[in-house]
Amino acid sequence: MPTLGPDEARERAATLDGADELAAFRDRFDQPDPGLVYLDGNSLGRPPEGTAERLQQVVRGEWADRLIRSWDERWMTLSARVGDLIGTGLLGARAGEVVVADSTTVNLFKLLGAALDVRRGRRAIVIDRDDFPTDRYVVEGLAATRGLDVRWIEANPVEGPQPEHVAAVLDDDVAVVSLSHVSYRSAAIADMRAITSLAHDAGALALWDLSHAVGAVPIDLEGAGADLAVGCTYKYLSGGPGAPAFLYVRTEHQSELRPPIWGWFGRRDQFAMEQGWLPADGIGAFLSGTPPILSLAAVEVGVSMLAFDAGMDRVRAKGRALTEFAVELFDAWLEPEGFALASPRDAARRGSHVLFRHPHARALFGKLLERGVIPDYREPQGIRMGMAPLTTRYADVVSGVWTLAELGAPPGS
Amino acid sequence: MPTLGPDEARERAATLDGADELAAFRDRFDQPDPGLVYLDGNSLGRPPEGTAERLQQVVRGEWADRLIRSWDERWMTLSARVGDLIGTGLLGARAGEVVVADSTTVNLFKLLGAALDVRRGRRAIVIDRDDFPTDRYVVEGLAATRGLDVRWIEANPVEGPQPEHVAAVLDDDVAVVSLSHVSYRSAAIADMRAITSLAHDAGALALWDLSHAVGAVPIDLEGAGADLAVGCTYKYLSGGPGAPAFLYVRTEHQSELRPPIWGWFGRRDQFAMEQGWLPADGIGAFLSGTPPILSLAAVEVGVSMLAFDAGMDRVRAKGRALTEFAVELFDAWLEPEGFALASPRDAARRGSHVLFRHPHARALFGKLLERGVIPDYREPQGIRMGMAPLTTRYADVVSGVWTLAELGAPPGS
Repeated sequence: MPTLGPDEARERAATLDGADELAAFRDRFDQPDPGLVYLDGNSLGRPPEGTAERLQQVVRGEWADRLIRSWDERWMTLSARVGDLIGTGLLGARAGEVVVADSTTVNLFKLLGAALDVRRGRRAIVIDRDDFPTDRYVVEGLAATRGLDVRWIEANPVEGPQPEHVAAVLDDDVAVVSLSHVSYRSAAIADMRAITSLAHDAGALALWDLSHAVGAVPIDLEGAGADLAVGCTYKYLSGGPGAPAFLYVRTEHQSELRPPIWGWFGRRDQFAMEQGWLPADGIGAFLSGTPPILSLAAVEVGVSMLAFDAGMDRVRAKGRALTEFAVELFDAWLEPEGFALASPRDAARRGSHVLFRHPHARALFGKLLERGVIPDYREPQGIRMGMAPLTTRYADVVSGVWTLAELGAPPGS
Repeated sequence: MPTLGPDEARERAATLDGADELAAFRDRFDQPDPGLVYLDGNSLGRPPEGTAERLQQVVRGEWADRLIRSWDERWMTLSARVGDLIGTGLLGARAGEVVVADSTTVNLFKLLGAALDVRRGRRAIVIDRDDFPTDRYVVEGLAATRGLDVRWIEANPVEGPQPEHVAAVLDDDVAVVSLSHVSYRSAAIADMRAITSLAHDAGALALWDLSHAVGAVPIDLEGAGADLAVGCTYKYLSGGPGAPAFLYVRTEHQSELRPPIWGWFGRRDQFAMEQGWLPADGIGAFLSGTPPILSLAAVEVGVSMLAFDAGMDRVRAKGRALTEFAVELFDAWLEPEGFALASPRDAARRGSHVLFRHPHARALFGKLLERGVIPDYREPQGIRMGMAPLTTRYADVVSGVWTLAELGAPPGS
């Protein structure tokens, strides 16, 4: 392979950035330090310019001015409204299938609990050994409490769980299969349609964690037949740190599934405040307590930009091109220095981030921060670079990978 | 009783407001409509002036500028830091006993679940028939899932649950007693120390919902021997709509109690992302998922003002005086028009709001809103007027009660 020099790579990046249809979106985000190379927008997306203004409007207008009246005027329906925006705009869901409230962890607990109840008698939950920690912990907690078994998928950590891994652990004792659509480490995409279909053949429900997928890859929950889903809004959606998560329950399941947490926001005729809990109609039954309105209101801004202004086709195309460029630079600069690519080589099988392994990844991560490059560190030995298509430039990819290569080169080389 | 005219009442109010040591605090809240008579600060507190600025600082500084680095720099400890501020400043808790995260509903679920686990074998939960709906629903949901009994306290709804009511349903089959310290409707104060002691005598744990108590009455969780507590931050604490709630676990219980939701934020060495869930040390184990930072950061402002600038002694004294004034005006103006006082007459037994019943309360509530008076409506037939000591004037009490009396008077009277 001919050596690609940094100057040549920078020229290539300049050309790509110049031709990028989405380049102008970058200016719609708040960037007080334009020199920073931020490659962690898949962990915490940058704030859209409109977010600070939206928060002022909520505080000064809706809260200070309208006070309690804003609950009736705007806030009671906000979880469902932002949910529909995400659901119909980014998830391939129908209206009335998604709400935004609570954390991904709590939403996982609610949906898995509901799935186990409706599949009572089945004694196993399937999950990937490499799934995101909170997904594993919630599953293990529910299994411990209810005396169920966890069936672990032991997949290749780079390629992630394949349909055949799932098929191998499925039988009529499995209540639910819980998987991430895009791996938080390797970015491997799991085949939602094929795996959901296998789960259904065994009589199990399929729950998808979309945290690293939403806003990075097109999702078609309805088409894939998915039963349940959860996901983050603070990554590619730029909803803000710890922004409330979404949950999806397929329309056809809404009348039979019941959340394990019976909260007043999920009760029919909430303000009648009557005795006994009755589920609200539809997806509303899966709300629990009062949602954090300031954080929730901030979610709308980034979602609209992604779903309606940019469009997921263009977002996906750019995300894919960015990771392809990163892998090309890996081949030229990182592989020779002892790094390993820990993401799928096939871009069609990869979300919008890439993982590089190196024995000294943790120390290298610290040095990258000092040099103004911000990726993420992920155990074990992983430097994860996230490319948020609306804010990451090809030039950032060059800067990030080149700096890592320089730092990773043995002294004196 | 000599008739008190509105002019005389207004003069009395002006004198009281003039002598009010806390009067200046009102100017530290955002009030775009100074003519409004807001008597619902016990449901949604007004925004402190500092909140909008604090949010700008979080968005522009911590989020936009420091990006993911803010997790290490500030946000990872924010739940505990704001928790300690509330715990030591307002709850009589020790440092390390309170965190802020999730909703009151979810926190109730977590603490009640933990209590039931540690009292496994005991088959009953005690709660008041008039407790706040979400408290009842969570208890009923847990009882249904675990096949336990709910033992209802049927107290006088005005005076609330007394120690003798609790004693009557306690035996060695009760796992936990869950009560509100201040009733959301009548404002009746339950005797935390006596009831907790009775629960302990029966080998049960005592959980206190402090939502309508915190920031209204002095609380001494440690002195009362309380085991567990939860509460809102969006009422008297002015944390903002749906602001995340707090939870308290007494230090002595922290090593034995385990939350039913095993989340990554509650795991020891969270970012090792290892297999299996191990509880974090101390109160941190009761965190679940990523907390909503924008909403959480907004909580600090109001808490500091209450706990440290105003001080709960002065806050309680004014709150008590405000409700005493309201009851005096009730006697003069409302009782003759067919209203009933549905709060304890003894101010020492009452939080910082009062409830008036009237057969046409719902219609009267609508008319009050049209006249620029905002109380709350609570089923059945209740007009609830909340006096937030930092923002409510004696003059507001006069305006609110007089307007209600005018509206409640029969036509032509």
